[in-house]
Amino acid sequence: MVRRPEPSDKFTFGLWTVGWNAVDPFGVGTRPMLEPWEYTKKLAELGAYGITFHDNDVFPFDATDAEREERVAKVKQAADESGLVIPMVTTNTFTHPVFKDGGLTNNDRSIRRFGLRKILRNVDLAAQMGAHTFVMWGGREGADYDSSKNLNAVFERYKEGLDTVAGYIKEQGYSLRIGLEPKPNEPRGDIFLPTVGHALALIAELDNGDIVGLNPEVGHEQMANLNFTHGIAQALNAGKLFHIDLNGQSGIKYDQDKVFGHGDLSSAFFTVDLLENGFPGQPDAPLYEGPRHFDYKPARTEGMDGVWETAAANMEMYLMLKEKAEAFRADPRTQELMEQAGVAELAQPTLAEGETVADLLADADSFENFDADAAGAREYHYVELYQQAMRHLIG
Amino acid sequence: MVRRPEPSDKFTFGLWTVGWNAVDPFGVGTRPMLEPWEYTKKLAELGAYGITFHDNDVFPFDATDAEREERVAKVKQAADESGLVIPMVTTNTFTHPVFKDGGLTNNDRSIRRFGLRKILRNVDLAAQMGAHTFVMWGGREGADYDSSKNLNAVFERYKEGLDTVAGYIKEQGYSLRIGLEPKPNEPRGDIFLPTVGHALALIAELDNGDIVGLNPEVGHEQMANLNFTHGIAQALNAGKLFHIDLNGQSGIKYDQDKVFGHGDLSSAFFTVDLLENGFPGQPDAPLYEGPRHFDYKPARTEGMDGVWETAAANMEMYLMLKEKAEAFRADPRTQELMEQAGVAELAQPTLAEGETVADLLADADSFENFDADAAGAREYHYVELYQQAMRHLIG
Amino acid sequence: MVRRPEPSDKFTFGLWTVGWNAVDPFGVGTRPMLEPWEYTKKLAELGAYGITFHDNDVFPFDATDAEREERVAKVKQAADESGLVIPMVTTNTFTHPVFKDGGLTNNDRSIRRFGLRKILRNVDLAAQMGAHTFVMWGGREGADYDSSKNLNAVFERYKEGLDTVAGYIKEQGYSLRIGLEPKPNEPRGDIFLPTVGHALALIAELDNGDIVGLNPEVGHEQMANLNFTHGIAQALNAGKLFHIDLNGQSGIKYDQDKVFGHGDLSSAFFTVDLLENGFPGQPDAPLYEGPRHFDYKPARTEGMDGVWETAAANMEMYLMLKEKAEAFRADPRTQELMEQAGVAELAQPTLAEGETVADLLADADSFENFDADAAGAREYHYVELYQQAMRHLIG
Amino acid sequence: MVRRPEPSDKFTFGLWTVGWNAVDPFGVGTRPMLEPWEYTKKLAELGAYGITFHDNDVFPFDATDAEREERVAKVKQAADESGLVIPMVTTNTFTHPVFKDGGLTNNDRSIRRFGLRKILRNVDLAAQMGAHTFVMWGGREGADYDSSKNLNAVFERYKEGLDTVAGYIKEQGYSLRIGLEPKPNEPRGDIFLPTVGHALALIAELDNGDIVGLNPEVGHEQMANLNFTHGIAQALNAGKLFHIDLNGQSGIKYDQDKVFGHGDLSSAFFTVDLLENGFPGQPDAPLYEGPRHFDYKPARTEGMDGVWETAAANMEMYLMLKEKAEAFRADPRTQELMEQAGVAELAQPTLAEGETVADLLADADSFENFDADAAGAREYHYVELYQQAMRHLIG
Repeated sequence: MVRRPEPSDKFTFGLWTVGWNAVDPFGVGTRPMLEPWEYTKKLAELGAYGITFHDNDVFPFDATDAEREERVAKVKQAADESGLVIPMVTTNTFTHPVFKDGGLTNNDRSIRRFGLRKILRNVDLAAQMGAHTFVMWGGREGADYDSSKNLNAVFERYKEGLDTVAGYIKEQGYSLRIGLEPKPNEPRGDIFLPTVGHALALIAELDNGDIVGLNPEVGHEQMANLNFTHGIAQALNAGKLFHIDLNGQSGIKYDQDKVFGHGDLSSAFFTVDLLENGFPGQPDAPLYEGPRHFDYKPARTEGMDGVWETAAANMEMYLMLKEKAEAFRADPRTQELMEQAGVAELAQPTLAEGETVADLLADADSFENFDADAAGAREYHYVELYQQAMRHLIG
Repeated sequence: MVRRPEPSDKFTFGLWTVGWNAVDPFGVGTRPMLEPWEYTKKLAELGAYGITFHDNDVFPFDATDAEREERVAKVKQAADESGLVIPMVTTNTFTHPVFKDGGLTNNDRSIRRFGLRKILRNVDLAAQMGAHTFVMWGGREGADYDSSKNLNAVFERYKEGLDTVAGYIKEQGYSLRIGLEPKPNEPRGDIFLPTVGHALALIAELDNGDIVGLNPEVGHEQMANLNFTHGIAQALNAGKLFHIDLNGQSGIKYDQDKVFGHGDLSSAFFTVDLLENGFPGQPDAPLYEGPRHFDYKPARTEGMDGVWETAAANMEMYLMLKEKAEAFRADPRTQELMEQAGVAELAQPTLAEGETVADLLADADSFENFDADAAGAREYHYVELYQQAMRHLIG
Repeated sequence: MVRRPEPSDKFTFGLWTVGWNAVDPFGVGTRPMLEPWEYTKKLAELGAYGITFHDNDVFPFDATDAEREERVAKVKQAADESGLVIPMVTTNTFTHPVFKDGGLTNNDRSIRRFGLRKILRNVDLAAQMGAHTFVMWGGREGADYDSSKNLNAVFERYKEGLDTVAGYIKEQGYSLRIGLEPKPNEPRGDIFLPTVGHALALIAELDNGDIVGLNPEVGHEQMANLNFTHGIAQALNAGKLFHIDLNGQSGIKYDQDKVFGHGDLSSAFFTVDLLENGFPGQPDAPLYEGPRHFDYKPARTEGMDGVWETAAANMEMYLMLKEKAEAFRADPRTQELMEQAGVAELAQPTLAEGETVADLLADADSFENFDADAAGAREYHYVELYQQAMRHLIG
Repeated sequence: MVRRPEPSDKFTFGLWTVGWNAVDPFGVGTRPMLEPWEYTKKLAELGAYGITFHDNDVFPFDATDAEREERVAKVKQAADESGLVIPMVTTNTFTHPVFKDGGLTNNDRSIRRFGLRKILRNVDLAAQMGAHTFVMWGGREGADYDSSKNLNAVFERYKEGLDTVAGYIKEQGYSLRIGLEPKPNEPRGDIFLPTVGHALALIAELDNGDIVGLNPEVGHEQMANLNFTHGIAQALNAGKLFHIDLNGQSGIKYDQDKVFGHGDLSSAFFTVDLLENGFPGQPDAPLYEGPRHFDYKPARTEGMDGVWETAAANMEMYLMLKEKAEAFRADPRTQELMEQAGVAELAQPTLAEGETVADLLADADSFENFDADAAGAREYHYVELYQQAMRHLIG
């Protein structure tokens, strides 16, 4: 039995996860929906560190200011009483029909302005809750039909919107960073920042990009047929892994939001290995130190017991994988195989310190005298190294 | 009948396309392989503008300097005699076993140095051929097995390699730009710059990134479940669409390299529409003006007649789509529907000129007085606009 | 301009298509929902031939008998008044929570019995409406998690259920056939009859399989990465194409239900070519003669105008493709290329009439004297034949 | 450490697996190729039970009869000396250009006759080797381009071919069964029997289908976005799981042929659970008792050491998964959760013994008195049951 989760594990849950009433495109809800403040106690008991929410998880789209304040206060109080922090807040720019063509990239300028206002308003809320991350999932920023958008304007407006929000955060002096959440499709046929790469690329063009990074989600990258661990590694390398959404997805299909590890298990192992143990042999390389945030949905076949079983399962999966990954890394046989595989060798610059291109061109050993056939016969033992990981994972 | 292609259409072909002898993972070649200089005459007759090649399309990996020069000269002479230009040259860092774990990101440092040398040598060749683009497809820069790489070091080495090559180009004063070619997988299980987005993001971190851009390939983005037109639009918006590989792919599977338009036909229509007609209603937006380069393979069922039939088919498809796209854009009914859809409205900044966040927050019309329900009822007529495109395409 | 649709085109629409109020997993409805009888008049005006429905498109799950009868009668009357037939009726075994683990294959036996009763009750309704096809889409017959099912029992129960329903139809003497509708996933992670092939295979094991066939849907097969035209061809070859669901899907993702032809356009062309023109050169081969049924959803960005625009677009797409396919087949150049490709040759049995295996083994020309290299050099001109199709489609 | 494999585990390897020299579409071979008889000794030492091969793994396509016999005899002798059986033999109808459009469904009748002869010849060889299964992978039976085939004729010819081969087996009195191996694509754009379902459906229409069943491959079904365990369960239910190809695939992409379990690990767990432990709670249900056949490729980065490491890894993965699956099933907590989930309940017929439809219709408890809301509130605890599996797998 793996140990119980503790707040120091930094496990956090969106209120929309345990709070999902299990409606799907072909069926009505199968579970009751509690009030948002009713989830905190049990999450705390299970070992969670914090909760997160969209504005409209807590109060309706058309709530009065009084209603809004009252409900937010009750959630904050419940969190406090349970010893839970609120490290991330986000805003819903996808449910109401006004956002059917997006918020920041809606063809309708008045809606873009309204969307921006809704976002700014909830940046204030995030700051008020003590959150450090403000996630922006632009799920409606996309298109179902080619021809419906000026795609150059799309990116101009997206940048304008993000820069406006980031600029506001700076102006206000909030201790907040923005985490963009890429997704390739669903609910739009093609969403505009479909992968970690596309989002990183856009951030690089912002004026206020220093406080804009990523909140990658396991299942979203996998819906684009991509390796999630590779994605977060590129984000880490760029200094942009600000938050993370852990869940499970079984291949390319609709967004399943299964329990973390309940999709591609071995990929989850290597994700945890990276999050917990960092890049191999490079202790000074970037590390992720934020919350381990679960963005999953309890299956529609489950009742309220299942809500809590699945919440616990996320944390248990993570901790089991963490234990295995630590043992894998610590095993001398792993070290030996990594040595054979040349894993550490990749951290050595290709050019020697101070070596210029001219020096390289003059180095006959690098080319003229290089025996490519001999070098091509090197055995990397990559499969054996992977098998070594499997021995730790399931052996 | 669509008109015949002309050099001013800027259609170019890789020598490895018409020159592919149709070997695949389960079968040997079904066609003879001509000498590289034997393809130019016929391509010119068909209306092509130029040819492109990898070094080892022209001379073997282990060619002597004399052999290399002789064979390159014959190709150049054949191109000149046929009136074809050579706007792009690239280098093969994937066929020989030495590159089985990549060139720039190989775990073996001596191979990284060798790879860099091979690339630099062919940068010289590209300049010598008068090319303006040097494509780098890092097909072997990837991993088949998680655990085989220090992924942070991967990106460090990739950047080091690219900066070295780009720095060399600048030093030499070559009129060359680098075009990275993303691909999600094949021949590696996961390639490191899997999409247009990931490549743009890496370029943004280079010291010499100003001369590094993209050479996106239709099929490669589609293998990652992405909308190709969206991808090149983001590249254009970033000023990074340096070259383009046109071909056809039928969904997520092995890299098919079919004739352009012989995969997702309507996506090809909107790609041509963007390349030829630019972003709608925004004449000052970035445009692509480089070659229309076909990177396809004549099907294995075809003989030498089929090689030329398929080469011609690429250009015919492009020109048919171009005619249709021009008529679609010119049709007043299209303009009307674009107006209803708000396509031009997206080019208007969300904030008014000089408007600050404070101004926006003070504008009650943007939020407090905004009727979200009414705005949410807007009918965009996106499907009718798309249907209008279909009427032009197939009506 | 293509001609207007007419009832003789046999275009039919599900009431749940034009009647969808545009709720999706991330958003509430964006359109009003009319009463079911309010759709017939306009559909008839647009040129439709008939309507189809699920029981619960017309009356609620918990309707009283009186309410049920009254509402059904109003729909029937509206259809009659508009000159529309009701060739297909189906039942909803997916929306209510009771079906969250399926109907016929629910682990809970009492629910299986209830599901069977609901189906039988609506078989009666289908007969009463004069329908000839009773579609069964087992969207909830599946699993989200391996381990949750005895998979052998799944197929036993599926067969038991289908045989019971088909047996009842026979007993009652209804002029009805069952059309199974395969789908790989959504709303379950894995649905049990994921493709045309799996459904055909199960039907082959039924006692009453003679009146059980298929209702394949374009997008569903494409979600399994399959060629839809190949799928319906296998169903036709097996005598099992009883009904068809036409719509559009753009690759492997959530079920998009776009307008027919608004996804993979060239695949839609070859589907229409097969439905309208039959297998090439084989007039005695099986043909599909049932309704052309559209199972699509008007995009969420559209209002009520868009509902009718999109309904019309389905029929317009079909008719445009039909015109093009007819011209393609009639063109003498097509005939010539089909001859070169050997398309007709495939209809010739491989063994001569009356030839035994012993005869074949004794025929030295078939093997001992056969020049495989010469035969392997045959040029099929498949790409040129396809390009010929493209010339008709977009030329 | 898991125990060493033994012959009683029935692990078999294709000679083309360990014998693959690592050529791929973008690279030449990276490993030497031994003579086929040189693999047996080492495989036996590692614990294998047998070997399998294609004719042309052992002798060339154009071998003389003498050469053929000599080389086959040497392989047989090597197998015998190593104590290995040869339970399966297959024939190569894909490498030579003559098969570029398929064997049994080639548009060219003379090639179909030649293909049939080649198959029949190797049926004799299979019988001579003492094999019990003759696998037929129709990898070239497909199309790259819609329009190139009369699809009805395709299925007619496929059935004719299979019936001819199966008829010959019966005539000769061979103790052989045919195992069809479905695959969705690669090397053709669309292969004709793309999934387990499509192949089962075709078999159901054969005259000699009693000795024709399936050889499903893990990666092939996963390339069609399908659940492999569901596929083999349907084959088992139909009495058609004659052989099995175990390997690993990481999502929808080119055919990776990784080590078994090195793709989707949890799916591999449930596959082994089914193969070893059968359908839960139903000991009389169909079981698979044939060889556990690995059809994988040692990665191109590996040398000869890696060939043996990866061969061993397949068996080690299987045995580790088997141990875990046995413990999972034996755990009383698993039984309890399966009880809650109703897993056994699904094996109970929906109708009581002797119950007619009329009886069901008369049973008011099944419908009129049934409380659907109450039944819909059932908690299945499927996720907790799955989590219980995970606890055994990685806990």
